[in-house]
Amino acid sequence: MQKVNLAEKLGLFSEQWSPKVVATVNDTAVKLVKLQGEFVWHHHDAEDELFLVLAGRLTMQFRDREVVLEPGELIVVPRGVEHRPVATEEAHVLLVEPATTLNTGNVRNERTVERPAEI
Amino acid sequence: MQKVNLAEKLGLFSEQWSPKVVATVNDTAVKLVKLQGEFVWHHHDAEDELFLVLAGRLTMQFRDREVVLEPGELIVVPRGVEHRPVATEEAHVLLVEPATTLNTGNVRNERTVERPAEI
Repeated sequence: MQKVNLAEKLGLFSEQWSPKVVATVNDTAVKLVKLQGEFVWHHHDAEDELFLVLAGRLTMQFRDREVVLEPGELIVVPRGVEHRPVATEEAHVLLVEPATTLNTGNVRNERTVERPAEI
Repeated sequence: MQKVNLAEKLGLFSEQWSPKVVATVNDTAVKLVKLQGEFVWHHHDAEDELFLVLAGRLTMQFRDREVVLEPGELIVVPRGVEHRPVATEEAHVLLVEPATTLNTGNVRNERTVERPAEI
């Protein structure tokens, strides 16, 4: 039962698009990720995914619209919904999702992180 | 798929010790709560509970020690562990826990919130 300082954890890595697990609560993982540029379109068959912006600006694109998130704003992307996170400048995001959720969902490519590191 | 602005949601209520559900991700609820003073000692038999401080300072007391949390810091209280949240000044806290988690855990008293409101 150590506390976790989010800023301190964010200072431990600079890699983008590579979620790091900072806490686990029941079967749910809390992950931190740094995003910049465009990710791949994907969905998660059986898992909802929550994005909370800590710094920067995140645009969540859906096939029919997009939602722009500022720090202190969150969105839940329900299972089955195609989405693509985009950030012009680097954004820092806290994710709440099952520990087993793969970052690229139904897609596997060079951006897939099979086992996010715990930091 | 609307975004949730945490500051805006916090502006919608002033009640203390009464968690409000602002998002659900899988079986997990994200709740906001305003805390001031001392809560009751309790534990949750089968549920871990995550506290992320958004504003103010939260002291999480355990039977053998305490952890002081500042904004941007989180702690996971594992199932079975007795704890008591305490805040001298009002603190604003984001909770991540099963949607079914009762705020007073194994205790039921006048501070128990049977069904947290969704805001």
